[in-house]
Amino acid sequence: MATKMVYFFGNGKAEGTAEMRNLLGGKGANLAEMTNMGIPVPAGFTITTEACTAYYANNEQWPEGLAEQVEENLKKLEDAMGAKFGDSENPLLLSVRSGARVSMPGMMDTVLNLGLNDTTVQGLIKKSNNPRFAYDCYRRFIQMYSDVVLGVPHSEFEAIMDEVKKSKGVELDSDLDADDLNELTRRFRDKVESALGRPFPLDVKEQLYGAINAVFSSWNNPRAITYRKIHGIPGDWGTAVNVQAMVFGNMGETSGTGVAFTRDPATGENKFYGEYLMNAQGEDVVAGIRTPQPIEVLEQEMPEIYAQLVEIYKKLEAHYKDMQDIEFTIQEGKLYMLQTRAGKRTATAAVRIAVEMVDEGLIDKRTAVTRVDASQLDQLLHPMIDPKAKVNVIAKGLPASPGAAVGKVVFTAQDAEEWAARGEKVILVRLETSPEDIGGMHVAQGILTARGGMTSHAAVVARGMGKCCVAGCGDVVINEEQRRFTVGDIVVNEGDYITLNGTTGEVILGEVDLIQPELSGDFGRLMEWADEIRVLKIRTNADTPHDAQVARDFGAEGIGLCRTEHMFFAEDRIKAVREMILAADEQGRRKALDKILPYQKNDFVEIFKVMRDLPVTIRLLDPPLHEFLPTEPGQIAGLAAEMGVAESVVRDKIASLQEFNPMLGFRGCRLGVVYPEIYEMQVRAIFMAACELAKQGYKIVPEVMIPLIGTIQEFEIIEEYCRKTAEQVMAEAGVKLEYSIGTMIEIPRATLIADKIAEKAEFFSFGTNDLTQMTFGYSRDDAGKFLPMYVEKNILAEDPFSTLDQEGVGQLVAIGTERGRSARPDLKIGICGEHGGDPRSVDFCHRVGLDYVSCSPFRVPIARLAAAQAQIANPR
Amino acid sequence: MATKMVYFFGNGKAEGTAEMRNLLGGKGANLAEMTNMGIPVPAGFTITTEACTAYYANNEQWPEGLAEQVEENLKKLEDAMGAKFGDSENPLLLSVRSGARVSMPGMMDTVLNLGLNDTTVQGLIKKSNNPRFAYDCYRRFIQMYSDVVLGVPHSEFEAIMDEVKKSKGVELDSDLDADDLNELTRRFRDKVESALGRPFPLDVKEQLYGAINAVFSSWNNPRAITYRKIHGIPGDWGTAVNVQAMVFGNMGETSGTGVAFTRDPATGENKFYGEYLMNAQGEDVVAGIRTPQPIEVLEQEMPEIYAQLVEIYKKLEAHYKDMQDIEFTIQEGKLYMLQTRAGKRTATAAVRIAVEMVDEGLIDKRTAVTRVDASQLDQLLHPMIDPKAKVNVIAKGLPASPGAAVGKVVFTAQDAEEWAARGEKVILVRLETSPEDIGGMHVAQGILTARGGMTSHAAVVARGMGKCCVAGCGDVVINEEQRRFTVGDIVVNEGDYITLNGTTGEVILGEVDLIQPELSGDFGRLMEWADEIRVLKIRTNADTPHDAQVARDFGAEGIGLCRTEHMFFAEDRIKAVREMILAADEQGRRKALDKILPYQKNDFVEIFKVMRDLPVTIRLLDPPLHEFLPTEPGQIAGLAAEMGVAESVVRDKIASLQEFNPMLGFRGCRLGVVYPEIYEMQVRAIFMAACELAKQGYKIVPEVMIPLIGTIQEFEIIEEYCRKTAEQVMAEAGVKLEYSIGTMIEIPRATLIADKIAEKAEFFSFGTNDLTQMTFGYSRDDAGKFLPMYVEKNILAEDPFSTLDQEGVGQLVAIGTERGRSARPDLKIGICGEHGGDPRSVDFCHRVGLDYVSCSPFRVPIARLAAAQAQIANPR
Repeated sequence: MATKMVYFFGNGKAEGTAEMRNLLGGKGANLAEMTNMGIPVPAGFTITTEACTAYYANNEQWPEGLAEQVEENLKKLEDAMGAKFGDSENPLLLSVRSGARVSMPGMMDTVLNLGLNDTTVQGLIKKSNNPRFAYDCYRRFIQMYSDVVLGVPHSEFEAIMDEVKKSKGVELDSDLDADDLNELTRRFRDKVESALGRPFPLDVKEQLYGAINAVFSSWNNPRAITYRKIHGIPGDWGTAVNVQAMVFGNMGETSGTGVAFTRDPATGENKFYGEYLMNAQGEDVVAGIRTPQPIEVLEQEMPEIYAQLVEIYKKLEAHYKDMQDIEFTIQEGKLYMLQTRAGKRTATAAVRIAVEMVDEGLIDKRTAVTRVDASQLDQLLHPMIDPKAKVNVIAKGLPASPGAAVGKVVFTAQDAEEWAARGEKVILVRLETSPEDIGGMHVAQGILTARGGMTSHAAVVARGMGKCCVAGCGDVVINEEQRRFTVGDIVVNEGDYITLNGTTGEVILGEVDLIQPELSGDFGRLMEWADEIRVLKIRTNADTPHDAQVARDFGAEGIGLCRTEHMFFAEDRIKAVREMILAADEQGRRKALDKILPYQKNDFVEIFKVMRDLPVTIRLLDPPLHEFLPTEPGQIAGLAAEMGVAESVVRDKIASLQEFNPMLGFRGCRLGVVYPEIYEMQVRAIFMAACELAKQGYKIVPEVMIPLIGTIQEFEIIEEYCRKTAEQVMAEAGVKLEYSIGTMIEIPRATLIADKIAEKAEFFSFGTNDLTQMTFGYSRDDAGKFLPMYVEKNILAEDPFSTLDQEGVGQLVAIGTERGRSARPDLKIGICGEHGGDPRSVDFCHRVGLDYVSCSPFRVPIARLAAAQAQIANPR
Repeated sequence: MATKMVYFFGNGKAEGTAEMRNLLGGKGANLAEMTNMGIPVPAGFTITTEACTAYYANNEQWPEGLAEQVEENLKKLEDAMGAKFGDSENPLLLSVRSGARVSMPGMMDTVLNLGLNDTTVQGLIKKSNNPRFAYDCYRRFIQMYSDVVLGVPHSEFEAIMDEVKKSKGVELDSDLDADDLNELTRRFRDKVESALGRPFPLDVKEQLYGAINAVFSSWNNPRAITYRKIHGIPGDWGTAVNVQAMVFGNMGETSGTGVAFTRDPATGENKFYGEYLMNAQGEDVVAGIRTPQPIEVLEQEMPEIYAQLVEIYKKLEAHYKDMQDIEFTIQEGKLYMLQTRAGKRTATAAVRIAVEMVDEGLIDKRTAVTRVDASQLDQLLHPMIDPKAKVNVIAKGLPASPGAAVGKVVFTAQDAEEWAARGEKVILVRLETSPEDIGGMHVAQGILTARGGMTSHAAVVARGMGKCCVAGCGDVVINEEQRRFTVGDIVVNEGDYITLNGTTGEVILGEVDLIQPELSGDFGRLMEWADEIRVLKIRTNADTPHDAQVARDFGAEGIGLCRTEHMFFAEDRIKAVREMILAADEQGRRKALDKILPYQKNDFVEIFKVMRDLPVTIRLLDPPLHEFLPTEPGQIAGLAAEMGVAESVVRDKIASLQEFNPMLGFRGCRLGVVYPEIYEMQVRAIFMAACELAKQGYKIVPEVMIPLIGTIQEFEIIEEYCRKTAEQVMAEAGVKLEYSIGTMIEIPRATLIADKIAEKAEFFSFGTNDLTQMTFGYSRDDAGKFLPMYVEKNILAEDPFSTLDQEGVGQLVAIGTERGRSARPDLKIGICGEHGGDPRSVDFCHRVGLDYVSCSPFRVPIARLAAAQAQIANPR
């Protein structure tokens, strides 16, 4: 006996269930489930995904037995509907739709009204008593079938329609009458015959078989293949085919169609929400020619139908235990459900629905935690553009830091500060930002840069500040001198308003209304549940007491990355920093460093105080020294005067420090090897701060992190003098602290020798920004030239600076983790790249066995939720 | 019974042999071997390396039984020498020397004249009848023993000697008489007592035990540990200790000492070569106070000794089957051999000796091939500085390209060309070179740059040209405007002569004599033997017909890397290249590319012709486009005028192409994805050239190499249009060629997904230059700021741009090879980085299973020899 390849549903009973999603596809499984629940669904049958796989295995021929099973089920369907396929009196019409295990939007091929020909259309006329309706169905069928099954493009038929309308002197399709439409069915078929050299199939069985084959084939069309590749869907899953009796919402005044949500998808409020149109088809609702009615109106218009719908939606929600998005059709006073599926919702709604469903006893906390898309949380934490606002998008850059911002354009950090000081809201527009711009970035509402990627300076700093940023917007041509920028012909002058959408990367002309975020109690409860579940710790990347406080308020459990370079730029010490760089010898450098020490110590005191008993990982100085020197002639002259040296001395030093590829240059621990005095000062400051607070009763456990380690020798050399300095400071203070010395793993080589490094290093923190740069060979500041195109062309599924590249970079993270732990089983391992706040990356970090992720303050809630979801998906 | 830990040699019979090197150390094994051969060797015994290991295992105490065995052998030694240790009449004096399995120069601690004290010195006086000699021995012993065993620094004793000489009013040690020296022995011992708080040990057994312990301990002194780490010598090998009866070459006119080689170490000529001094010790020969005599003179002076020496050296050479470096001492008319070992030799000598020894039937061809240090071959291929010349080294940079060059200093490529055109020999001195300097580099004798590393532009191009280059010489401060450079106070003006030593990196003031290379027939024969043995193929990196011809003459078996960017710089097409870059759209680019096509086709015709039937791998365009645009205002204006566009257009384009880290920027296949028309033109040119020659009877198999692949999608996209273009050209020409499309593996990520890439790519070529840059995170152009210090501090054993880093980068090469072959077992794999010409890297490539290495033309012979040696060491 042949395998069962066709599953029937109808008359209140289905052979399938919701659990059979793999075999019947998502759509087929839900139709079966609804049928079994006693919900009115037009009868039909589902051809299994296995049949599709067998079709491909069988050289694109139907597997044995399939034809018989289709025939048999078609017979059952005729019986159920009391109509006959191909009948001239009471014809059964069918829809044929694909339906894979998981939703693959855009891949689905659908044929409606199948079963029409010159004979059956007469039956439809009789049945509907509406010739125009019947011919319209017929011509739509020919058009759709020819396009989907026969490969004659849609546009060919539109051209014929245009001709007919022109010759009749009318404009709208609806102005055509029954005769016109009948004429069209003939002309359409002539078109098909001339295009293919054979007539349009009028045999209804041939129509059905052709449509089923077309759905099978659609599984391997190029766009489906690409979609599967991107989303990691195996090619051998295949698609199911759903063959279902047609129902019509456009059969007259007692017919209609509608869509609804079981709760409000915008607010999450527990109320029935939707709209409908009488005497209409689904596509009419979408086309927007007639305005649909709110679903409440149906209660007056068809109270029985409405009551039935309410009963059904409650049943569906209770059954699926999630907010449902449903489609229905009323045919001549009878209600049919066409679809049910989990409804899309805003973040606000998602949180409210999840929490309320727990309170209602529908779902448990673990389920609630999986019901909110972690990356959507951004919506709750930042201002948003009012969805009702009309916007004039003039350019699109990278969505570098989420939220929205409105303000007047300024072109320098100094202007930003001056304008802000007098109460203006400004948007800072720069070619790219540098550490000198920090002050201006801080006071700006948002930041727009023409260059740089998702981990460019602007992007990283803005995310850290929780401030909206659009980066690498190549269409924006900045003329700083003339204080304006242009996008094509559009000129935006200093002082003009623009609005940024950092969530989408859009640059909008003018002032747009924003919606301010508000965190509900529901949010707090959901986060608590997430915390109960997750095993991954969440830390934050914070360099200032303010950022640390924000992150702590958002639930951060420590600082995973406290960069120290921003501290070097502060006005009160940049002079000493430059003096240090310009010093002729170690003695000169030490003298300058002595001046920085008290400030640096105070930096750490403040941050330690905010974090109190939570761990703080401090990264020693990382950037190349030339970043601290001025670049403009005036500044160079000023610095020379300040330092009391010739301008040429400063210029020569700048020239000697200049680098072709600073990313791969003299930075990180390489500085610590060549100039130990710099790190010594920093370690001294860290331990002076920690000892001072320890005496006040704080429990400080400093974690000193050495950046950019590539060889074990680098670590050994630096570790040795760091320990010596730490011990010395503690001895001086008479305090004994626990502390640890570890390293960033951010150079590919470090992952390969992680076992050796772990013999010495007490913790690892994967610096996935730099690791991504080096593993791909992409400069984050330059990749804007090709990365957007790479993502667009599906060369990369994602910007690897936003979502960790598991295929490549992830391998190195896994290797580094495994080898590190092989040498030191209790090695503490985290990541502190920008990926720490990306849900998919967090999931990866969980699976690979890291101890924590560290992300910018505003991403902490996202990471908490994502970590809980990761634990639910893969308990560890 | 305790393990045997002491091996005796003496009286023509030894317990050890040359094969027992692991147990007795190299020195001990050879002393035993010579003894067994009947060669006169002062008797002695060797304490095994196992005893040393046991000493460490035993908490630095002698293992059980060692003391007894030492006593027993000391007794044997006394018997053999007819003298008694510690005797006042006929005292036995000893030398105590370390001796590990492999030579570890600088680690060895040695104590001579051991066994002297106030009593035994009297015996020595009687025996030698020479009080001055005896006291001199005594004071030297105290000095050496105190330094090596007791840790009282040598300098303390020198200070006392200076005092004594001053008080006597003499200058030389030899001006001190017996009484003075006797006085010194007392003052020396007082010094020791005051320094250590205990007297200098006068008990001879205590002296011996102390010396043996000191040798044991020297195995774990810091410099020995560092040396072992660098050379990968296991710490648990331990060192042997050789205790041997002293013989004296300074006992009078019938005593003497000398060193000799069994063949001429400079030329390889088969003749006895050496020198000696009568009435002298080894150190006197080294000190150079007296001029030694050529060994031939000994024939007149002591014909019997000479005859005996000749007999011995012949015996030793015949026995060891290699040229020996021997040391001997004549004590009162009796000859003693103190050492024999393989002699160091020049490359010329190494080749000649190896080949002649095969002809003499001493060794076979395989052995001959292992007798020449492959990296030494450079000496044979390039001019060298006359070793006899006096040189004034003013600075030292990186030895970027070997050989030597003399010429007048010029500071621009244009000057170089002009000066050379009028017959001047010039050295081109630049801050760094760029592709625009190629012409000037070509005509220069040598190149000196102030910046850049071993794979900087200057270094790579110079090696390709076989031209001497010193790169990254940071001490050289160039003032191009004033046409001079300075090194400290030294000023070198344009037109002044300098000499470069590219083999050492030395910059020499003035004109120095060079020795021109000459390739002997021996060289050719050795190379033939190497070719018979090796399995690794050797290709070359060559971009011009000239380089290709040179490489072919040196034995290259194909081109492994034909870069195409240099072609774009040629004067006849750079204009079209710039037009292409400045074009507003694809159409404009195609128009410009059409102009380049005929030139590019011709490039390939010429190279294919030279290589005839050998494979040629052509890499499609790799560098970022901004490299082709001018940088100076004048040039920009010129280009704008030429192109008929506003200067601002050119300037904007340059600005838009500018990159922060061009190394990680918009280059390689990223260009090929965004601008397919560029690679299409190149592929068209390749196949037009190949088809044209195919019609003339050439057998061309083009290998098209796509650079910088990091994702499989990049490869797929580019491969598709390359194949299409190739097929089209072949169809047009009516020619069907075999060809293949492969990729550089140079991005870390590519090694990790090599299995996927190999499903599509038909060959891999590891671009280990870029792979090293990205795996380490080192920019080759910037690493000069810290790499020299890294090598000096032993953070890195080698410059990883010269010798492949097997610990890190090598892992990725191995992973890429293994994964690539897992998907395509017959995948052809090579490397084309600069490492292809480095012997240790060649050995690695052999072991990892590559098919070929590709290197610059002048390195081809080195690679051939190294590949043969690799096969001998690890047959595959």
